[in-house]
Amino acid sequence: MSDFAASLADPLKEANEPSSAVARFGPETPLAMDCGVSLDHWQIAYQTYGALNAARSNAILVCHALTGDQHVASRNPITGKGGWWTAMVGPGKPIDTDRFFVICANVVGGCTGTTGPASTNPETGQPWGLAFPMVTIRDMVRAQRHLVDSLGIDTLFCVAGGSMGGMQVLQWAASYPDRVFAALPLATAAKHSAQNIAFHEVGRQAVMADPEWRGGRYLEEGTRPSKGLSVARMGAHITYLSEPALHRKFGRKLQDREAPTFSFDADFQVESYLRYQGLSFVERFDANSYLYVTRAMDYFDLAADHDGVLAKAFAGTKTRFCVASFTSDWLFPTADSRAIVHALNAAGASVSFVELESDKGHDAFLLEEPNLFATTRGFIGAAARARGI
Amino acid sequence: MSDFAASLADPLKEANEPSSAVARFGPETPLAMDCGVSLDHWQIAYQTYGALNAARSNAILVCHALTGDQHVASRNPITGKGGWWTAMVGPGKPIDTDRFFVICANVVGGCTGTTGPASTNPETGQPWGLAFPMVTIRDMVRAQRHLVDSLGIDTLFCVAGGSMGGMQVLQWAASYPDRVFAALPLATAAKHSAQNIAFHEVGRQAVMADPEWRGGRYLEEGTRPSKGLSVARMGAHITYLSEPALHRKFGRKLQDREAPTFSFDADFQVESYLRYQGLSFVERFDANSYLYVTRAMDYFDLAADHDGVLAKAFAGTKTRFCVASFTSDWLFPTADSRAIVHALNAAGASVSFVELESDKGHDAFLLEEPNLFATTRGFIGAAARARGI
Repeated sequence: MSDFAASLADPLKEANEPSSAVARFGPETPLAMDCGVSLDHWQIAYQTYGALNAARSNAILVCHALTGDQHVASRNPITGKGGWWTAMVGPGKPIDTDRFFVICANVVGGCTGTTGPASTNPETGQPWGLAFPMVTIRDMVRAQRHLVDSLGIDTLFCVAGGSMGGMQVLQWAASYPDRVFAALPLATAAKHSAQNIAFHEVGRQAVMADPEWRGGRYLEEGTRPSKGLSVARMGAHITYLSEPALHRKFGRKLQDREAPTFSFDADFQVESYLRYQGLSFVERFDANSYLYVTRAMDYFDLAADHDGVLAKAFAGTKTRFCVASFTSDWLFPTADSRAIVHALNAAGASVSFVELESDKGHDAFLLEEPNLFATTRGFIGAAARARGI
Repeated sequence: MSDFAASLADPLKEANEPSSAVARFGPETPLAMDCGVSLDHWQIAYQTYGALNAARSNAILVCHALTGDQHVASRNPITGKGGWWTAMVGPGKPIDTDRFFVICANVVGGCTGTTGPASTNPETGQPWGLAFPMVTIRDMVRAQRHLVDSLGIDTLFCVAGGSMGGMQVLQWAASYPDRVFAALPLATAAKHSAQNIAFHEVGRQAVMADPEWRGGRYLEEGTRPSKGLSVARMGAHITYLSEPALHRKFGRKLQDREAPTFSFDADFQVESYLRYQGLSFVERFDANSYLYVTRAMDYFDLAADHDGVLAKAFAGTKTRFCVASFTSDWLFPTADSRAIVHALNAAGASVSFVELESDKGHDAFLLEEPNLFATTRGFIGAAARARGI
């Protein structure tokens, strides 16, 4: 029991909320990764909500974003907080757990129970660290496919997710078109932009600059690169918001003081907020996982596997798509979603597209956005009727 | 001779290019700072180009940005490269050194010869470090005013600068309206936004997270927080560009390789470029200066000294203004310049405003932008005629 889930789930388990289930795979089901490595012993931690119907036709796979986890709609045992998408997923919610069987799995390379760099390398008995093979979005999806197989589900009714979750949705539709009835990629892109790679690289360099990172061997050496990871999170967090939202929430308001202190204290509320974001993040996330998962996003370029033509990734698809972006999202701007929609149209796919008005930036997909909920509810409802659920 | 200029200028001096002049001030000319501290021994390093006319009416003060210096139009002795604004300043250039007497001074808090945190604290004989008083944009301008006084110049023909330089231009016009005939604030704002404060705070935290920073005492202890400062610069550098410019220059192009390496090497050109930006920056900039000068920008809010009404900062001004912004500048977007123009109009000032089309982001003001040059040439020319130069 080398993985985080095992050690974390038990002490924090609560009667009414299931701890993560873990699917373990051995040499008969290796995870063949894009980098050429094949993992012979690996596992995937996941949560499920609702019940699978007799026809096994009502499963919705929710894919999480960069620092998300499998706790999409129930209490997170690490933070003690609610799930990361309770606004969207739950009884009566747009992704209705009274009606659908919802699955959410921690990604490969992650740190909440699925095999990743903090897991034990079976060859050494030590944490993988940087010896862990590089992960791609396609590897994450391959692992999820094994999980879905193991659950006895042939076709997913829907695959849904935002940001990196949306990348996985697109990859599912491209890799396994016959196994995805409907796809809901939100606030995402078919490839990571130069600017986004640049922001990720700064975050990685911040982690690696921390001497406590120890070349990735901090678990063995009993240290934690908390300062570097905190700086990485602070920088990234700015990109998840928008200038108008920051202006509205904080502006130049001071933190518990009448006048600036003429010091490097967190005079401004926005500084205090960011510092908190950094500090709380390091309590729940593994630094090497942060390196691996950001890298997976950087490598993502769905068209690259199809002669650079994105439409070819979706050739002949029968999946129905709903693509949504947010006006103030500058990390995954509407132009990225339009490129997906153009490719889907060129491939003859069924696709609806909506750009939602919001000042909340990229994180809008995780927040209280009634128009997103209405869009999702409408899309899922129509797809369910078409699917005969 | 404790300051950088003294130690740097001599060995690098070249026959045809003057090393920095240094104006030294003693207790008879203290620098009274906003934080309440008064510096009794301080100095300002500056460069001049061209000749002051007999009427002393042709002086143009150029104010530098965050990491700039006094070497606006001549070889920088530290980097060995040309001045940072040779596109704009020089013989026959829009700011024509054949015609005008151009002055550029390193800001207070800086690290290329003007008193700052790397200077010696006369009370201890050690570098100031974090004991250096916090600097504001107004302090920088106060120091420049003392320099201008010492040069025997009553009214500056023009004060010009971009970004933090533009903040100084606005502060000059507000603090000393009778001493500024024309003002050219470029790609700037009358107050620093929440998002910009946030980015600066991440940079400062990156520096402070580096254990080699030693609580600001790295000079005494013989260390350098190079990794932290490099990370800060990488993050900041992204904000100086634009997504379209990054896409055009780098896109997802790989660096000297055919395929990704599935590693944390700088596979992408944009990563390699950013790493270079970080590494080269630490060769020329002091980490504590970075903290102080970013803080000065954060504190800048010109309206705050005038009951929150920016127009009052310019009440009764006779200065003529030319304000310019760039379409792709998301750090100091056009809306910030419009707010300045609205205030100037409300104050009855003479102001022209142009938003220049460019995909180069905030750094456009430093780059080859013919429309900016034409605008500047036109504005300076008309002002010179009005001034009778």
